[in-house]
Amino acid sequence: MRGRTEEDLEDPTFRRGVVALLGALAYGELVSFFTIVNDADRAPEARDKVALARVAVHEFEHYERLVERLKELGADPQESMAPFAKAIDTWHQRTQPSSWLEGLMKVYAGNTIATDFYRECSVFVDPSTRALVDEVLKDSGQTEFAKSELAKGIAEDSRVAGRLALWGRRLVGEALSQAQRVAAEQDELTALLIDDGSGHGFDLGELMRLFTRITDAHTARMEALGLTA
Amino acid sequence: MRGRTEEDLEDPTFRRGVVALLGALAYGELVSFFTIVNDADRAPEARDKVALARVAVHEFEHYERLVERLKELGADPQESMAPFAKAIDTWHQRTQPSSWLEGLMKVYAGNTIATDFYRECSVFVDPSTRALVDEVLKDSGQTEFAKSELAKGIAEDSRVAGRLALWGRRLVGEALSQAQRVAAEQDELTALLIDDGSGHGFDLGELMRLFTRITDAHTARMEALGLTA
Repeated sequence: MRGRTEEDLEDPTFRRGVVALLGALAYGELVSFFTIVNDADRAPEARDKVALARVAVHEFEHYERLVERLKELGADPQESMAPFAKAIDTWHQRTQPSSWLEGLMKVYAGNTIATDFYRECSVFVDPSTRALVDEVLKDSGQTEFAKSELAKGIAEDSRVAGRLALWGRRLVGEALSQAQRVAAEQDELTALLIDDGSGHGFDLGELMRLFTRITDAHTARMEALGLTA
Repeated sequence: MRGRTEEDLEDPTFRRGVVALLGALAYGELVSFFTIVNDADRAPEARDKVALARVAVHEFEHYERLVERLKELGADPQESMAPFAKAIDTWHQRTQPSSWLEGLMKVYAGNTIATDFYRECSVFVDPSTRALVDEVLKDSGQTEFAKSELAKGIAEDSRVAGRLALWGRRLVGEALSQAQRVAAEQDELTALLIDDGSGHGFDLGELMRLFTRITDAHTARMEALGLTA
């Protein structure tokens, strides 16, 4: 597989793939901003409230940078995000945390799995877009924050562990089911990710290994908290 | 009245007054961040949602700069904000908008009256603090945005006007009642604002004129929408 260059953006199919990836990411960041602020409002400590608000503000800044890149590529940001709204909204509706710890698990396990997936996709885009995607996917400390709070919660009350393990499985299950919907409906994004003979994208074996990598990383994260994935 | 200088910060009474003003402002900005994001979630259009989220992010940035200044002055940010939490929280609880237009009126009439008041206070602080306060009070376009949306809402349905006028009166009434609570309980802030013979602060006549200025500005804003204050 040869890497993509800026010139490849002249190819309308490739360009649509890049726009689709940016659109999915941008919508995801915007929704994250709102859900993290809602979580923050539930935080037991004023200090945590502020820390989470700061994380949310980072997501919003990422959203604005993605929108800027979409405009640079001549795409309409609203139109580019629209195809992913249903899947992302549905995921959030089906995984509404009912407690502070469930909200943190959503950050720790849910957002991270999405991040891992987007990072795999970013291999196939042009260098400028890739640099931007890598930057917006960079962890701004929220995973570590969620992890230490979760570890504290589990240490304080051992019954919490079982419930959180179950909740983690639900987060991932719902994410996979929405990812399948997107894969089935969004040809632009799958064309970017899967090799149709153009020499770009994953072949079937590589695609299976991608899913294995993402699943293994998730399992390792859950085990780091002493939970079964 | 002579202006304050940086050296005046050596005076503990003056310093406590400045810290109190910054604490009240910082807590107000933090709460605004959360309430504006909640309002944004109710916005009918995706475009408005993003516009309001951007306003909220500005408030959070202001909050962070105020906290920084509190630290520079050797004050604990949490402790400095605590005395104002009750009044500000109560105001928000008693003025929860039940619609998109009520939320906008809260921005247009409610936040603006608070801004006018803080700007009057800023006359009495040291130049560095004053520059910061003036900057965080600068309108980042939200008043104009709220105004044009409100004007649209009133033009579309004339019955809206009467309800919004009533709601505007409620916003101001609740604000005054919370301001009185703060004035009665927070000596640090009143000492900053009212001249106790030190030659700083307003005398009684000036204080009356301050309230007249603030009330007149509110009346003018309501009239600009064709509403009775």
